[in-house]
Amino acid sequence: MKMSGGVEWALHCCVVLTAADQPVPAARLAELHDVSASYLAKQLQGLSRAGLVQSIQGQSGGYLLTRAPELITVLDVVEAVDGTRPAFVCTEIRQRGPLAVPAEACVVPCAISRAMTAADAAWRGALRAVTIADLAHDVSVDYDSDPFAVIRPWLGAAERTA
Amino acid sequence: MKMSGGVEWALHCCVVLTAADQPVPAARLAELHDVSASYLAKQLQGLSRAGLVQSIQGQSGGYLLTRAPELITVLDVVEAVDGTRPAFVCTEIRQRGPLAVPAEACVVPCAISRAMTAADAAWRGALRAVTIADLAHDVSVDYDSDPFAVIRPWLGAAERTA
Repeated sequence: MKMSGGVEWALHCCVVLTAADQPVPAARLAELHDVSASYLAKQLQGLSRAGLVQSIQGQSGGYLLTRAPELITVLDVVEAVDGTRPAFVCTEIRQRGPLAVPAEACVVPCAISRAMTAADAAWRGALRAVTIADLAHDVSVDYDSDPFAVIRPWLGAAERTA
Repeated sequence: MKMSGGVEWALHCCVVLTAADQPVPAARLAELHDVSASYLAKQLQGLSRAGLVQSIQGQSGGYLLTRAPELITVLDVVEAVDGTRPAFVCTEIRQRGPLAVPAEACVVPCAISRAMTAADAAWRGALRAVTIADLAHDVSVDYDSDPFAVIRPWLGAAERTA
């Protein structure tokens, strides 16, 4: 099973944006994460389309979260970047071949599809249980010194260096 | 997130093999599922490498499950075909850029990685909770008539038609 690498960048951006007092230019987020601005722009557009960040235009423009980080789940970000389509897609194999089950008898999803759907729901449930605020809290206590104490003023210095 | 389409074929093959009294040729499984034999052979080889099915050589050769279907989980099959690598791979973004966390401070996985690992564990746990026997039972009760009542003699007729 494979997930878009953009999910990781997007989650890091959202966690960093919890520390932003003012809009953070995409170029500043790219610099912080040492990644190409064009690549990161794609992930930010996904977050923007999903209504998780807003792009503010102008001289002091940039990105901000649209709501409190307690109200943005990891699942929101994963689905914004990687889509909502389940990893397993049932192609109705039971309706194929010489012993095919007639379509009219397939009133419930195939048992295999049900098992995969249940696992998908467990996965999404786990991602829905963690918010960006949770991640930011965890990051702030993971190290001897709080990384946000350094990230916050660095983000605020964007106007001087942009 | 994307999963190999082979997972679906492999699960259907395992469920069908619960009805086999004797080895089922790969060509017979391909015919039953109306799929190319070469494509299905690849999935069967994955199942064989993982020790879930055995290939019996000779005139009456074919595939059989290696153990009771109660002892084969859906996760076993998914990992046999799609691998065991988690969908999310942490690339240690926290160690990049001008405010990189020093490697020596990264004594625990990144908070983002931990959240994704927990979700992956929930997904695998759900797949581990369902066995091939469970799927076969569900298939046998899903329809007005038990599909295995037709599949079993059809598989047994392989020698006459192969």
